[in-house]
Amino acid sequence: MVMNSSKTDSKIKFILMETSHPGNIGAAARALKNMSLDQLVLVNPKQFPSAEATARASGADDILYNATVTDSLDQALEGCSLVIGTTARPRSLYLPELNPRECAEKIEQEIKQESVQEGDAPDVAILFGREDSGLSNEELDRCNILMRIPTSQEYSSLNLAAAIQVLAYELMMLRGAELKKPIGNSERLYPLATADEMGGFFDHIEKTIVDTGFLDPDNPRQVMRRLRRLFNRAEVDRNEINIMRGILTSIRERIEG
Amino acid sequence: MVMNSSKTDSKIKFILMETSHPGNIGAAARALKNMSLDQLVLVNPKQFPSAEATARASGADDILYNATVTDSLDQALEGCSLVIGTTARPRSLYLPELNPRECAEKIEQEIKQESVQEGDAPDVAILFGREDSGLSNEELDRCNILMRIPTSQEYSSLNLAAAIQVLAYELMMLRGAELKKPIGNSERLYPLATADEMGGFFDHIEKTIVDTGFLDPDNPRQVMRRLRRLFNRAEVDRNEINIMRGILTSIRERIEG
Repeated sequence: MVMNSSKTDSKIKFILMETSHPGNIGAAARALKNMSLDQLVLVNPKQFPSAEATARASGADDILYNATVTDSLDQALEGCSLVIGTTARPRSLYLPELNPRECAEKIEQEIKQESVQEGDAPDVAILFGREDSGLSNEELDRCNILMRIPTSQEYSSLNLAAAIQVLAYELMMLRGAELKKPIGNSERLYPLATADEMGGFFDHIEKTIVDTGFLDPDNPRQVMRRLRRLFNRAEVDRNEINIMRGILTSIRERIEG
Repeated sequence: MVMNSSKTDSKIKFILMETSHPGNIGAAARALKNMSLDQLVLVNPKQFPSAEATARASGADDILYNATVTDSLDQALEGCSLVIGTTARPRSLYLPELNPRECAEKIEQEIKQESVQEGDAPDVAILFGREDSGLSNEELDRCNILMRIPTSQEYSSLNLAAAIQVLAYELMMLRGAELKKPIGNSERLYPLATADEMGGFFDHIEKTIVDTGFLDPDNPRQVMRRLRRLFNRAEVDRNEINIMRGILTSIRERIEG
């Protein structure tokens, strides 16, 4: 997995406004740490620190311990350039509205751009509102962009930490952290069977099923083609081919013996 | 936003194995409902129903109320074809490992494909393991594919509901978007074999190779596990399973006759 430096990660501030439930703060810390993010800013949390937050952080207590607690959004936004507000419903705010994927791209662009500059580059801030009422209009006035997570129309409000998880995940996906497509049998411990070995295996099956009477050699239909396709698709390795041939040998010995 | 019918959504089963914390069950219900999903299956939950689950579901109590509770994975998988296991760490299982985005694509392909067929199409199952220890090897043996969420290398274990949220979000993002690349056995003409059919097939192989003397029932080593992984990886369809079972029957008749 390709990881960016912690310096870059630390340029993304997750700002939580007046969070009511300490469990959500802990779960947010965990979601950030899972995705190599570490800047948690709490504006007037109802209860912090709290045992419940620590329990839900589940090993991400360093993020809680290092969290910045402020009593105003102004303080929280110090040093930030791009400010992104989150909302569960469409708002007529004349602000561009991005989904989490577009938002992550925007954030990465911003950070890359800043890093070219001299001096201390501004951070990016993402504002998450209260569990019950979201962000106020005054808070939204501070935002350049809105992020909205696509949801069911009837039930659109995500849990606070779940919304943070979704954006944090998109940021991780974007950073070259995509798993190198091991599609197929790619973590094999043995080399893939060679074409020769596969050919020998298919001959072996064919002889065996002619012997058992399953395959009529004068009317083979599509059977061998289908079996070839099945086993080729499976990307059979050498160990597996040895098992299969061992089975075929045991069958033929039993039949002939 | 383009929404699929609820029928399609209901074909995706989220199966939670032996969940310890009822709060996670509630949060999972909420994550599903947010993303227009509704099939929650609980295998031996430690505590359910529970006030904590209902509190965390926060309005998604209908998903909890309609959740299926079973005492075995077999029951949970009834009627399912594609089975996806989730894991927090790389596992050497000879299974393709997809990230949540690829996984969502795979699931949508599967559902679209099945819906072309006549009759009742199988469901897709996603298995989520225990909070502390994930899925067992026996449970992973039932899977065609693994899903792994890219994370920090040092801190890779997401909260259970957070992992569900990520996949549910990817499924939501995908709807209304065209499917791009086919992954796996996607050009099949027949529906994927169900978990039941695969189970019957593995029993049939096992009996046969015990009969031929290839498998010593007192010392089975890894043979059946390797065969399971080989065939699960191949995403065997119903026609192929019928061919393979026909071959096994012809072998046993020949041996016994």
